[in-house]
Amino acid sequence: MEDTRRRIAVVGCGTVGASWAALFLAHGLDVAATDPAPGAEERLRRFVDRALEQLRALGCRGEGRLSFHTAMADALIGATFVQENAPENEGLKRRLLAEIDGLVQPEVVIASSTSALVRSAIVADCTHAGRHIVAHPFNPPHLLPLVEIVGGDAAAVASAVAFYKSLGRRPVVLSREMPGHIANRLSSALYREAVHLVEQGVASVADIDAAISHGPGLRWALMGPHMTYHLGGGEGGIAHYLEHLGPSQERRWAALGNPSLGPEVRERIVAGVAEEAAGRSIAELEAERDAALMGLLRLLGRGPAGGAA
Amino acid sequence: MEDTRRRIAVVGCGTVGASWAALFLAHGLDVAATDPAPGAEERLRRFVDRALEQLRALGCRGEGRLSFHTAMADALIGATFVQENAPENEGLKRRLLAEIDGLVQPEVVIASSTSALVRSAIVADCTHAGRHIVAHPFNPPHLLPLVEIVGGDAAAVASAVAFYKSLGRRPVVLSREMPGHIANRLSSALYREAVHLVEQGVASVADIDAAISHGPGLRWALMGPHMTYHLGGGEGGIAHYLEHLGPSQERRWAALGNPSLGPEVRERIVAGVAEEAAGRSIAELEAERDAALMGLLRLLGRGPAGGAA
Repeated sequence: MEDTRRRIAVVGCGTVGASWAALFLAHGLDVAATDPAPGAEERLRRFVDRALEQLRALGCRGEGRLSFHTAMADALIGATFVQENAPENEGLKRRLLAEIDGLVQPEVVIASSTSALVRSAIVADCTHAGRHIVAHPFNPPHLLPLVEIVGGDAAAVASAVAFYKSLGRRPVVLSREMPGHIANRLSSALYREAVHLVEQGVASVADIDAAISHGPGLRWALMGPHMTYHLGGGEGGIAHYLEHLGPSQERRWAALGNPSLGPEVRERIVAGVAEEAAGRSIAELEAERDAALMGLLRLLGRGPAGGAA
Repeated sequence: MEDTRRRIAVVGCGTVGASWAALFLAHGLDVAATDPAPGAEERLRRFVDRALEQLRALGCRGEGRLSFHTAMADALIGATFVQENAPENEGLKRRLLAEIDGLVQPEVVIASSTSALVRSAIVADCTHAGRHIVAHPFNPPHLLPLVEIVGGDAAAVASAVAFYKSLGRRPVVLSREMPGHIANRLSSALYREAVHLVEQGVASVADIDAAISHGPGLRWALMGPHMTYHLGGGEGGIAHYLEHLGPSQERRWAALGNPSLGPEVRERIVAGVAEEAAGRSIAELEAERDAALMGLLRLLGRGPAGGAA
């Protein structure tokens, strides 16, 4: 009996790969996973079990089957889509993608979860480079909807966009590649000034964090920076804002800091975060974050089941 | 019969002043408002009515009395706290604060809602400068909990912190003044790179906005950037993150853009925001934002009634 279900190959099963696997399974897709690290299967299954619970609570009703393969070639047999999540090492990823490229049918889209590398560099040795895309998710990937996509040929991009939308994701297609894509560049820009304020001793690490999470961060969960300034411009909107406050934005840009992450400021950040964590372990903080994120996704209708939770 | 209720003077009744007024009233405090603009009282009362509805829905049960005074001196009689919200003009604010300083008892704290001016400049002509603080809220101020505070003497700061906490706010005290305080500097840093990405044609305005609101923006509603990287560092937390990824942060900082808000990029932003708004008016977008913000505040226990809603 022929199995017509889609079969997704997940190559590399760290947090990102395991998270993708859970998302695919929760939408009824079969997952063939592979990772050369010792103990990888056990860690994958443990992560997937916990993530699947969260995805079920968010309304995902699918029940895909998970298989694990020590040999990558076995995981790729019959794959209809490949999600690659190997470590962020350009040489390694370049060799790996070329190998995958030679093992799956040329019409299969191969998506790389890279955050720091650019597409053109890692697909350089692929024969069918056009079907290779970057598809970069956000931590934790089974919960956050954003997927940044860099093509590849138009058909591969269109097919990936449709695929990720079917998983309740919000794909954003870049018109050209850019190191760090979009959201990590914006995050880095914000973080540079946050580190500058720590360096300058303007406030504690916890208070600088609170200045985001109790202020503009609450708005950024709802809308991006352009729309935020549109609503900050009064009845004239963004046009009024840019005309009247554009010059003061530019003056502020010129006054932003340019810190280094030297030993002293790093020590201050580490101590400040410890104070902010107030004894909570990473696992406890993650559990708090995930619970709040799930509430947020439900509230905003941005969950993995397409807002149906 | 002596009235022992606190009486807050609200000087300047634009959106920020009106929003403060509603917050005070909803906590049972009397408000004496003043604004020299024609039609100010009517606009104030209309804004307050709508904001009070939202604050009641969030669990605020107080019922302060609102009075409006054409002459500022009348609004200041018997004031136990002054919230000043005049236009962002240094000369004007400097004269105004000196005038208020001469009219209210020296133990009364006078808080300025300025976002762009620094405290030392605007209190320069005040006799009792120590009781003058900056207390900068975020739009919409009756909903967003953050209040950035710049002292002033320690007693004035402590008294203001206690006061704003009693209104369900999250005060953040700066150890020294900084143009733009904290959150607007972080917002500007993020916006600079957002404008850079528009300028470079990397994605549409709507997609750049979505890259925040469907990605890191959802996390920033829960925690600030330091805690976010703490959870991005795996089991080693922020110390591990800074040690291993600090250098790549620094490389990304060096590669961030430095755009100008020239006519061409401004046109592109205005057109992109219009596309993103898809026909929704500012009022409709604000109503959507407020409804979602209220849900968010309830979910996170950060509402104006101290999470009791």
